[in-house]
Amino acid sequence: MVSNVQPGAAGPPRLVSQIRYELLTLGDELLLGLTANGHLTFIGAQLGRHGALLRRNVTITDEADAIAAQFRESWARADIVITTGGLGPTCDDRTRDVVAEVLGQKLVFNAAIKTAIEERFARHGRVMTENNLKQAYVFERGEVLNNANGTAPGLWVEQDGKVLIMLPGPPNELHPMFIEQVVPRLAARKLLLDREAYVQMRTAGVGESALETRLQPIFDRAGPGLSVAYCAHQGSVDCRVSSPTGALSAPELEAIAAECARLLGDDFVGYGHHSLARVCADLLRAQEKRLAVVETATGGLLAHAFTEVCGACKFFAGGVVCCSNDAKMQLLDVPECLLLQHGAVSDEAAVAMATGAAETLGADYALAVTGFAGAAEQGVSGNPVGTIFIGLFSPAGVWSKKLSYPGPRSTIKVRAVNAALDWLRRELLRAHRGETTPARRTETMR
Amino acid sequence: MVSNVQPGAAGPPRLVSQIRYELLTLGDELLLGLTANGHLTFIGAQLGRHGALLRRNVTITDEADAIAAQFRESWARADIVITTGGLGPTCDDRTRDVVAEVLGQKLVFNAAIKTAIEERFARHGRVMTENNLKQAYVFERGEVLNNANGTAPGLWVEQDGKVLIMLPGPPNELHPMFIEQVVPRLAARKLLLDREAYVQMRTAGVGESALETRLQPIFDRAGPGLSVAYCAHQGSVDCRVSSPTGALSAPELEAIAAECARLLGDDFVGYGHHSLARVCADLLRAQEKRLAVVETATGGLLAHAFTEVCGACKFFAGGVVCCSNDAKMQLLDVPECLLLQHGAVSDEAAVAMATGAAETLGADYALAVTGFAGAAEQGVSGNPVGTIFIGLFSPAGVWSKKLSYPGPRSTIKVRAVNAALDWLRRELLRAHRGETTPARRTETMR
Repeated sequence: MVSNVQPGAAGPPRLVSQIRYELLTLGDELLLGLTANGHLTFIGAQLGRHGALLRRNVTITDEADAIAAQFRESWARADIVITTGGLGPTCDDRTRDVVAEVLGQKLVFNAAIKTAIEERFARHGRVMTENNLKQAYVFERGEVLNNANGTAPGLWVEQDGKVLIMLPGPPNELHPMFIEQVVPRLAARKLLLDREAYVQMRTAGVGESALETRLQPIFDRAGPGLSVAYCAHQGSVDCRVSSPTGALSAPELEAIAAECARLLGDDFVGYGHHSLARVCADLLRAQEKRLAVVETATGGLLAHAFTEVCGACKFFAGGVVCCSNDAKMQLLDVPECLLLQHGAVSDEAAVAMATGAAETLGADYALAVTGFAGAAEQGVSGNPVGTIFIGLFSPAGVWSKKLSYPGPRSTIKVRAVNAALDWLRRELLRAHRGETTPARRTETMR
Repeated sequence: MVSNVQPGAAGPPRLVSQIRYELLTLGDELLLGLTANGHLTFIGAQLGRHGALLRRNVTITDEADAIAAQFRESWARADIVITTGGLGPTCDDRTRDVVAEVLGQKLVFNAAIKTAIEERFARHGRVMTENNLKQAYVFERGEVLNNANGTAPGLWVEQDGKVLIMLPGPPNELHPMFIEQVVPRLAARKLLLDREAYVQMRTAGVGESALETRLQPIFDRAGPGLSVAYCAHQGSVDCRVSSPTGALSAPELEAIAAECARLLGDDFVGYGHHSLARVCADLLRAQEKRLAVVETATGGLLAHAFTEVCGACKFFAGGVVCCSNDAKMQLLDVPECLLLQHGAVSDEAAVAMATGAAETLGADYALAVTGFAGAAEQGVSGNPVGTIFIGLFSPAGVWSKKLSYPGPRSTIKVRAVNAALDWLRRELLRAHRGETTPARRTETMR
């Protein structure tokens, strides 16, 4: 029983990390592999940010019997049950009825929801069909979570010393509802922290075990109240420090993170969740510089990373995606003799491509990525699949790096993009500090 | 009980669609939202392709107690339990021990696995650490699924009239193991079909309900043995026909699908799972034509779609990603006066960009995508966010289309890419048939 939900209930208040959260995701499309279970990723991360650990996620079919059995079991063992999906107007959306029966509650008609649905249809110039009225039925003892982005409202029930939260399936409806309504309500009942539960440090260019070795002395000094977790992405590792018992305060956690950041120097990318491209974008904007990219092996992914940043036109001069030598020569004035002598996958080509991109597009910085991400492109050169050359053009000069990655094509592409972003980030930091960059060639990244 | 697993067991053989499959995915990183649950997507789709429906997926933490309780429950109610993860060498990989205890089995040391692990380490020039030997322990009554891509083998147990399949977590190890070893073993025991369970028709440019209206008469004639399912992507809808009861044979299903394809004409993209980009690539290769792309709003996604196709250099001449008018003018010879008069988001710009891309990159076909995918790019023109212009250059002429999409930036980008791919596909089909294309402008897509 969660004492915080019903103040009169027995037992001492518990830590947020001890509260048992379960998530039921409904929908055959998940079990058939037609749609990825993004609700698990989103809700798991949101709970984690506020100090709670999702204990279980169960995905089941849309059948009424399966929903009833699973909900009954989850409701018996969890403190908080969150469901997603099954609230819409179609006949296979029967979650509401099934759950009401298990809870012993009646569904009652809510005229305000009906009006909201009708107004939404009118705004979009459509006529509401009868089956939409199903969404106006809510639990007699419960509350409604307004849906600004769709027709089905969310539902909130407190009963049996537990909380049930039913959310609509479409992500553009669920995400704002969760952040704006669910998190504050849970925090008000002390079922989530009302602040970030951890400080996240994003790093790049250091492997997980090497990072652990460097940071461990700092964590040892902090004592047993500290919890540390690592998460490796492709070429980037996040380190989270938290204090689930509350032994360390938020300012103390921030001080520990700041000490880590100082120790890591340029290997530290930033606090929080900003992407490498976003960090580069901020540095470019601060220095009023513009960037161009040219890519073969990564096929548009590098340009995509920058154009995902809001307002990319301010710093992104443009990108070129090429396969053939013709395109490289024509668009970027890369000399044919250079490509013929050294090959399109070479230090020389990477440097010439970066230079050509910067000059043609009028940019201050340019990244070039060339290489073999898959067997079909390998051609006749001696370089194995996974060989990547990165060229970096900057106001201080132009250099290249040779890298080598194992794994499938998709992994090689992402790692090459991240390596290019990280190199640019480091050069922008040096430029920001006024450091002159020594010329380097064919450097191996850590 | 699954009579097929233990031939001596009671009960008649069951349909594959009636066999109860459950999937246990293990790992805190899934519950913390750090990693998407790709195992659910992959295994759910694989089972569906072979006629089985995954009934439940449960994701739980790495704690031994949680694993034991969940496995006990799933083993009691399912016919086949598949687990992923928790087989590695680190101390939090304890699934093997917990499951052995629930099954009442001993773990025994397998010298052949030890040798395979040692050889794998030696091949990569590394020394095997002691903790890797944990992976050489297998069930005393069970079989081993070899892992060609990692150290932890898969495990296969038949007991209590049920099957347990334990798979390693890394996707590049799990995927080939599932396709090459698990599917054939299950099919041999008649727990999966040994062929595709459905015929999938991929369509484009038609909404789900419109598609249903057009195809329903064909399905009505086929009778009650037919099962039909639709799955909408962004601008593309898949329709699957199957016969879970076996009332219709594979040739009969294929005949029904062929009738649908004939009725749909060019709205029919193909059978199976090929992407729109792959279908375009096949048409380009068959006609020995080359393609160039230029994009603003989609920021590299269109080029990425084509470069994901294996051997893209054969048909992909290159791509340009631009934001500013400078880049458009410099790289593609788009006249400045045109952009100033009509704006960079206009029919005129789309046509000029497509023409410039084709001529500069020496391509036979070119796609241009320009528009506003987010508020930051909207600028001062009168076009709202979601406005997209597509330009198509072909040997028969050059045209543009104006489109409008609701939703967040990521949705607008994907829909614009798919609309561009679909238009190119239709023009390639017409060219293949020798049809001359009438000039069109500012056409609205269905």
